[in-house]
Amino acid sequence: MNNTIETILNHRSIRSFTDQLLTAEEIDTLVKSAQAAPTSSYVQAYTIIGVSDPEKKRELSVLAGNQPYVEHNGHFFVFCADLYRHQKLAEEKGEHISELLENTEMFMVSLIDAALAAQNMSIAAESMGLGICYIGGIRNELDKVTEVLQTPDHVLPLFGLAVGHPANPSGKKPRLPKQAVYHENTYNVNDEDFRKHMSAYDKTISDYYRERTNGQRVETWSDQILNFMKQKPRTYLNEYVKEKGFNKN
Amino acid sequence: MNNTIETILNHRSIRSFTDQLLTAEEIDTLVKSAQAAPTSSYVQAYTIIGVSDPEKKRELSVLAGNQPYVEHNGHFFVFCADLYRHQKLAEEKGEHISELLENTEMFMVSLIDAALAAQNMSIAAESMGLGICYIGGIRNELDKVTEVLQTPDHVLPLFGLAVGHPANPSGKKPRLPKQAVYHENTYNVNDEDFRKHMSAYDKTISDYYRERTNGQRVETWSDQILNFMKQKPRTYLNEYVKEKGFNKN
Repeated sequence: MNNTIETILNHRSIRSFTDQLLTAEEIDTLVKSAQAAPTSSYVQAYTIIGVSDPEKKRELSVLAGNQPYVEHNGHFFVFCADLYRHQKLAEEKGEHISELLENTEMFMVSLIDAALAAQNMSIAAESMGLGICYIGGIRNELDKVTEVLQTPDHVLPLFGLAVGHPANPSGKKPRLPKQAVYHENTYNVNDEDFRKHMSAYDKTISDYYRERTNGQRVETWSDQILNFMKQKPRTYLNEYVKEKGFNKN
Repeated sequence: MNNTIETILNHRSIRSFTDQLLTAEEIDTLVKSAQAAPTSSYVQAYTIIGVSDPEKKRELSVLAGNQPYVEHNGHFFVFCADLYRHQKLAEEKGEHISELLENTEMFMVSLIDAALAAQNMSIAAESMGLGICYIGGIRNELDKVTEVLQTPDHVLPLFGLAVGHPANPSGKKPRLPKQAVYHENTYNVNDEDFRKHMSAYDKTISDYYRERTNGQRVETWSDQILNFMKQKPRTYLNEYVKEKGFNKN
């Protein structure tokens, strides 16, 4: 196994960073790494906003549900779907592409492009000995997040990425059994297989939490994801993303 | 610069592979690497379908717009947004979560999860000396793709990933200027800056193509992306993804 695969397999989210800020050179390497990611038909439909202003970091931390590591880290990045520059270029050429730009295909393209870039940055950071944590919590109140970051229409903040020097180690959370995620040639809808994989995994997760909390937490994966959906439904997003010029038709 | 960052910065899409198939062990390492990716609130809302059946690969190649490297490669993976297992688990517990599951937030979560996993696999593959190419073309005719792969509702094929031993080297395409993609603290909407970056980049790309085609192709980036949107609008997706149980409310 090479170093890169070791880095990838060793991933865990870090939720506690020292005060040491990233250097300008480190930030530059991370942004370059993000930009090297594949992009759908070369559209590069994303933007990264690096947040260093302590007041903005504090505001984002509150908006993300009081997550202290959004404020305290080495650097905070916000990855956005971005079709603004495509819209501007079309306008300047007198082309009318809003309907195409604002369709579901381009929404999907911009989300995927942003995520590919973010994961490049994450692996680059981890290969440098830094820790990372994705922050989906910024989608709690995107109207306020767009105010803090002053993003125009056709730009949609998707998630944050806190990067920094890890203060505390954290555990590597077990993933779904391979057979539940990897199918060969066709999707396996066999109910018996499904139940077998899920019940084995539920036990793995329950044991994992039990051991790490001295028996205080015994939640299964099934419980956890059903609770998550009920707690963070973010039902306003359907309308909100349309208002911002995405996923309209 | 470490090996991992070198691998990341050296990325280029490979569109021509030798006949050498990936070994079972290589596939296993790639799937493990994908699974190690971060996932939003632990939902792991994606599935990977590995396609080795030559007939299925041929069909997908035609559906993706006759791209021969979809058929001829070391292995072909299809990354899908997957909320099927979440729906099943809820059903078995007598919970009614369809409305939450099918909302735009979960659509976004599943796309981002799938893309993070795919980029982990891509970097792992490249670190092993393999080449990769993302195949958005499978979104041309998703109804037929879902037939080939027999995916149920709440599973949405998003893109393919062709992986294999490179037969021909390919060029590294220049990315947007850093200042156009990376903003500090707030999104820069200054028109003058925008025009400066775009016109510099259009020249870079035009020169890049001119040099590689002996002057036959001189397209700028602006031209290219506007043409792309007009050629591949995939306007059916808005309705289609809803039919499959995504992005409905």
